[in-house]
Order: sequence, then structure tokens, then C-alpha cells
Amino acid sequence: MIQCAYMSTIFEQIIAGDIPANKIYEDGQTFAFLDANPVNPGHTLVIPKEPYKNIETVPEDLLTAVMQTVKFLAPQIQTAVKADGFNIHENNGTVAGQVVPHLHFHIIPRFEGDDFEHWHGAEDYHDGKAGEEIAARISRSL
Amino acid sequence: MIQCAYMSTIFEQIIAGDIPANKIYEDGQTFAFLDANPVNPGHTLVIPKEPYKNIETVPEDLLTAVMQTVKFLAPQIQTAVKADGFNIHENNGTVAGQVVPHLHFHIIPRFEGDDFEHWHGAEDYHDGKAGEEIAARISRSL
Repeated sequence: MIQCAYMSTIFEQIIAGDIPANKIYEDGQTFAFLDANPVNPGHTLVIPKEPYKNIETVPEDLLTAVMQTVKFLAPQIQTAVKADGFNIHENNGTVAGQVVPHLHFHIIPRFEGDDFEHWHGAEDYHDGKAGEEIAARISRSL
Repeated sequence: MIQCAYMSTIFEQIIAGDIPANKIYEDGQTFAFLDANPVNPGHTLVIPKEPYKNIETVPEDLLTAVMQTVKFLAPQIQTAVKADGFNIHENNGTVAGQVVPHLHFHIIPRFEGDDFEHWHGAEDYHDGKAGEEIAARISRSL
């Protein structure tokens, strides 16, 4: 039995055609298909064909290609499903809701009255100092 | 009195230094600062300096610059605030939660147990045909 340390994800199997999906678009570097569990009709995932795990590990030029596909598709998806706007979401890490470890951007068409609510400012910096301190901590680390 | 059809947004006033903000990073084309109403500590907004409204209208090269700043900053923000992951969100249109009409990407640090829940598949395509039909409608429009 051949052992293989690398496990392909469902997205690679979708690109290869081994798992069916509703494909919307494909070019040399990127691939787009309907999310099988949509938040709203037309909910689409845009991925690089190469299986990078997240925004941290994907090469800059491939991230650029993915974002150009997002920019190209999102307004046309909005028009096709007669939505009023859309969200772009990308999740890094299990804690952030990432299920498949292959970078993907969600395009989520939004409709008036669909009742999806964004997270709002649950935290507050209370006074100016707390925000300043966090900004300084981040800036120092760059 | 000089009348001006163009109204600058709060983000342009932040870039100009006319409104205070906790700046994290700046380069020739992009600017990053703490969201004043953070979902979690370290919640950051990355914007192009030029005031394009959304992902549809921003030029491709400027979107690339913004995403490179997001890619550069997000892992370092995660480390600086000791988060376990992060979300990248961008909202197009009022219905999608866009408040300021100047393109901005949210970097939202996430922590185990912070209890923010993603939207999940509220819709379902019920049978294969519904998904196929929507995918075909989008593909035809491209």
C-alpha cells in the first residue's frame, strides 16, 4: 500500500471533476463554483487551483489572480440573482469558521430583508488609551 | 460660497489626519487603522487612499495593493493580539452592511470561545436542479 502524507481536500476533487459541483467560472489559476450550503441563492466560492491553505501562505500573485476573479464575478452574480449587494468573506483558521483547508473567498449575494446581521462592536476600547496601546503593539511588530 | 458635489467620507478625513484614528500602517496606496467599534481587539480596516466606493469600482491594481496590505498585516495582527485566527470581510452595498462608501477590508482577529457565529446555509437548493439552474444563469451572464 502506498502511503501519502498529503491529503487532498474536497476542493481539489471538485476541480478535478471527481466530486460534482455547480461550476461558474474557471481560468488558468482560479476556479469558482456554487457553495453547496448557500447562505443565499448564488452564494459562490472562488479558489486558487493550487491548494494553498490560507491568505498567509498563498503567493502574492496567486492572491491577486483570485481577487481579480472575485472582482469580475461578484457584480455579475449580484445581477444574475437580482441581489441588492454582496459580502466577500474569507476565513483563516478553524476558530474563524474555516472548514476546508484550501483558501476560498465567499461571494454572498444579499437581499433586502434577508435578515443576516453582521457582528457589531462587541468590544470597545473604553478609553483612547486601550486603542492606542493595541495599535502601538501591532505597529511595533511589523 | 463654493458648492462641491463631492462629499468626502470619514475615511478620507482619517487619512488626512483631520479625524483621529489609531493608525497601524501606511504605504503609497493603502492605509490601515483600528476599527473604532471593534468586534474583537485588533479589529483593523484596510483601505485604498483613493476613495473608490467598492470592489466593483476600484481599479484592479489598487485592489491588488489593498490585498497585499491585508495579507501582510493580518498574520501580524493575529500574533500581536494573540488571536487564534482571523476573518477578512468586505461589504458591498448598504444591504450588505457597508456604512462608509469607501472600499474597506475588515481584518477581524478571532479567539477561541469568542462566540461569533457565521451565517450558515439558510437556503438550500433542495434538489440538484435548482443549483444547476442558478449556476447556468450566472455563467450565461459572464
